[in-house]
Amino acid sequence: MEDTKIAIAQINTSVGDIESNVDKIVEFVEKAKATGAELVVFPEMTIPGYPPRDLLLSPEFIEDCEKALARVREASNGIAVVVGSVDLPEDAEKPFNTAFVFNNGKLEYKYHKAHLPNYDVFDEKRYFNAGTDPGVFMLNGRKIGLNICEDIWIEGGPADIQAASGVDLIVNLSASPFYYGKTLVREKLITDHIARGNTPIIYVNQVGGQDDLIFDGESFAYNGKGQLLAQGRHFKEELIVFNINDQPITLRPDPKVEEVYEALKMGLRDFVDKTGKRMSQPFEKVVFGLSGGVDSALVAAIAADALGPDRVMAVLMPSEFSSTHSIIDSEKLVQNLGIDAITLPIGNMYNTTIETVSTSFSNKPFDLTEENIQARLRMVALYAVANKHGYMVLNTSNKSEAAVGYGTLYGDMAGDFGVISDVPKMLVYELCNYVNEKAMYERIPGNIITKEPSAELREGQLDRQSLPDYDKLDLIVNAYVEHLRSPAQIEAEHPELKELIKDVVRKVDAAEHKRRKAPPGTKITPLAFGTGRRMPITNGYAGR
Amino acid sequence: MEDTKIAIAQINTSVGDIESNVDKIVEFVEKAKATGAELVVFPEMTIPGYPPRDLLLSPEFIEDCEKALARVREASNGIAVVVGSVDLPEDAEKPFNTAFVFNNGKLEYKYHKAHLPNYDVFDEKRYFNAGTDPGVFMLNGRKIGLNICEDIWIEGGPADIQAASGVDLIVNLSASPFYYGKTLVREKLITDHIARGNTPIIYVNQVGGQDDLIFDGESFAYNGKGQLLAQGRHFKEELIVFNINDQPITLRPDPKVEEVYEALKMGLRDFVDKTGKRMSQPFEKVVFGLSGGVDSALVAAIAADALGPDRVMAVLMPSEFSSTHSIIDSEKLVQNLGIDAITLPIGNMYNTTIETVSTSFSNKPFDLTEENIQARLRMVALYAVANKHGYMVLNTSNKSEAAVGYGTLYGDMAGDFGVISDVPKMLVYELCNYVNEKAMYERIPGNIITKEPSAELREGQLDRQSLPDYDKLDLIVNAYVEHLRSPAQIEAEHPELKELIKDVVRKVDAAEHKRRKAPPGTKITPLAFGTGRRMPITNGYAGR
Repeated sequence: MEDTKIAIAQINTSVGDIESNVDKIVEFVEKAKATGAELVVFPEMTIPGYPPRDLLLSPEFIEDCEKALARVREASNGIAVVVGSVDLPEDAEKPFNTAFVFNNGKLEYKYHKAHLPNYDVFDEKRYFNAGTDPGVFMLNGRKIGLNICEDIWIEGGPADIQAASGVDLIVNLSASPFYYGKTLVREKLITDHIARGNTPIIYVNQVGGQDDLIFDGESFAYNGKGQLLAQGRHFKEELIVFNINDQPITLRPDPKVEEVYEALKMGLRDFVDKTGKRMSQPFEKVVFGLSGGVDSALVAAIAADALGPDRVMAVLMPSEFSSTHSIIDSEKLVQNLGIDAITLPIGNMYNTTIETVSTSFSNKPFDLTEENIQARLRMVALYAVANKHGYMVLNTSNKSEAAVGYGTLYGDMAGDFGVISDVPKMLVYELCNYVNEKAMYERIPGNIITKEPSAELREGQLDRQSLPDYDKLDLIVNAYVEHLRSPAQIEAEHPELKELIKDVVRKVDAAEHKRRKAPPGTKITPLAFGTGRRMPITNGYAGR
Repeated sequence: MEDTKIAIAQINTSVGDIESNVDKIVEFVEKAKATGAELVVFPEMTIPGYPPRDLLLSPEFIEDCEKALARVREASNGIAVVVGSVDLPEDAEKPFNTAFVFNNGKLEYKYHKAHLPNYDVFDEKRYFNAGTDPGVFMLNGRKIGLNICEDIWIEGGPADIQAASGVDLIVNLSASPFYYGKTLVREKLITDHIARGNTPIIYVNQVGGQDDLIFDGESFAYNGKGQLLAQGRHFKEELIVFNINDQPITLRPDPKVEEVYEALKMGLRDFVDKTGKRMSQPFEKVVFGLSGGVDSALVAAIAADALGPDRVMAVLMPSEFSSTHSIIDSEKLVQNLGIDAITLPIGNMYNTTIETVSTSFSNKPFDLTEENIQARLRMVALYAVANKHGYMVLNTSNKSEAAVGYGTLYGDMAGDFGVISDVPKMLVYELCNYVNEKAMYERIPGNIITKEPSAELREGQLDRQSLPDYDKLDLIVNAYVEHLRSPAQIEAEHPELKELIKDVVRKVDAAEHKRRKAPPGTKITPLAFGTGRRMPITNGYAGR
């Protein structure tokens, strides 16, 4: 193929913010023109952002997206632009998920996505009709195959058919959610394709956080020999310009812990700033409870790195059950991160509450009730600070706790965003160690990482009194939740864990009602609690 | 058609509780035999219950459902049984939503649902493959057309094709969620069908509550002239036996307010008892905050009527802002209903909390923060009672409040079940009046209904200081949320409400993050917040 300069616009759009998205599209089209590229390709659903969910049921929203195409068409003077949006033909009941090709101020072609994912976090059959277009168009004398996201994941689907029909180049517009290790999954997908079809592939993925979903970028360009020509950065907006005859480069997969840390940073930052944008006053700061434990320490570091320490406020809320070292460790961490911190001891609130409510306790002994009261009063204090100053409250629960319901509903399970809600406990430790290795000192004080986990809600409490070792817990949760393995299957592989498997599965099932009320949080595993997992609360199969 | 005695088993199954469901199926088969019926028909997905949601992704669950068919087959000795379940052929990737016909101990026929709803609360394309069977089988010399729920709602779909092919009888297995007025919608559906095809139709709908969904029963049998032969009761489990040559009866549609009241009762009762069933200890009681306002008064009446007054505990939590009449009215209501009540004044909790947290307030004046603190402390007190005694907490928020976010996250928006979460405020009043009319005295004290609404969170507070009149609010919310009308369309019909429409729409959009964390509650309108409405939280289109 002759020399062809192409630009990949790996951009971070905002769902629903049509005008800002088009501003950004036009900005990147101009940048691409300046490089001399003859084609610039944007991700799936560039104009509405992805996923717009039930906004797509609004005829007004569809119309506004359609109107916005005019500005992109105008911007295409002197360059070809491939952009994603919706298309609702007059006789159609539902719109199509569409790639529009503009060239020199004219609509050259449009392609309707054929394969609509309707599993995991995806509901595309709720919103779209499936297209049946070949997806092949001519651009400056070259034959190009065009398809969208899921289309290229289907063996024998549109991308394969286009390759077999002899196109010179395949372009795929994606909004492919992140989970750790996905770079290699996508690399295999693309190189397998090229092994079958020998056609160069440009894979353009969006970047940015949207509620629970993270899109990591990592767009690719491969030549017809299956060699990598260009790779977009992880979690960064970027214009990637390459020539189809460039020398190959080496794939750069990030280590798991590093990519998860970056994903968590972007997930938090985009949630705070994108939701804040439409408010009368954006969130100046985030606020969270700092306990002296490993989870809130990690959240503190992520928040400081994502938003800058000036925008982060830790609230220490010690009670009579808090250990001295918890307070000392927390203060050291605050200092290392350079974040703001205040202390609101909850002792008086707790005592007064017990005085008030214990009249209804029928003299029953201290139990989970009193523990829950403490966790809930901390929520009250945290939200008082947040409400008074217009801050956002971060939730610091991890996935292992959420799985088994080891947390207080409306207490430590509360918050506006779950920074590490999809991070299993063992990975929390790895991330803390990563923070320290990167800083080359104990930025998170070593004692926080090495001490035995405790909720400190009663005298001498330790997590292991209520929970199995976290390595075993994570193993079972991973198998049961993320891989949909049955208890019997897990037991066949780990007969020594028989009783534990039964217990954990029962707890996971019983905690559904708690998780249903959890805030959104960044998905970093193949299957997160939330939109990707839709279990009934009233469930007679549970706890078997 | 010659005399044929048929039984409709309008039963209340539990999602996932395969064994209990099959027990009930067998019990109703035996009852049907005892009546001399030659055919008994059950609702859609009888064995797994409907909707099982992501349980359907578990191969073990599918297998357990398939195994359970054996007991139904055995029970069919001496009668034909049509039952709903899943069917996963060996080469299929996903199961089919299936109707099985057993006759005299043998599998006679099976039909795979052709039309899979994937809108509103439905996700059937996530779980099922679509069938292509004709759905026609012979039973005792008669030709019967068989189809499932959505199939009969599609004009020109399986039911029409079956009628055109000359079947003697059409049988439809349904799990059709309730909203007010649906009886007449279904009646029109069926009679329109018969007007086209002149074939008798048996429409079997399940009954019972499942999380946010209510199935109201109201199964129908119509002869080929479009005359009603039998109608199942509303919200009641029942075996309905009729002869195809019976004399026609008159349709019995319930008045809106009455059917909503019954729906709310069933929704609450089934949530409490079905979720309690799998716990080590079922919920002995429900508990909720009784404020002296109309919402909690209605919830009190519903709970007393649904569960019996012995299982209902009201908690009065007055503060310095509570009016004396609120307490007097509440005490009168408690007496009328015969429920249990305790009083936990939150004054001391509030003062101590303010003392503790105000150190962080930078001397900013009293605002929403202090109001939220009261609402949240009431939640703490309510959950303390619930946790100590193993009770379930009821949420008393109505739909109008939830729509505009007039409520405190983790305060009055908390709870395990939203008894009236889909009831607009004006309908709350109608329901209260209905309670009193039915009781023929002011069971809900008149003052509660007639006084001006107030959250009583600050001195002299009235809802109308923050909200428009509820009739206008409900009109706008109904148009915007339930009918997906754009602000411009609503304004075209109500130009006098221009500014109000803008304000309400902005508030609805901005409150998404609060509603996302709301407990499930009984859906009684065509479109409820929850599974049927999936708006993004991060939403740049909102507040336009």
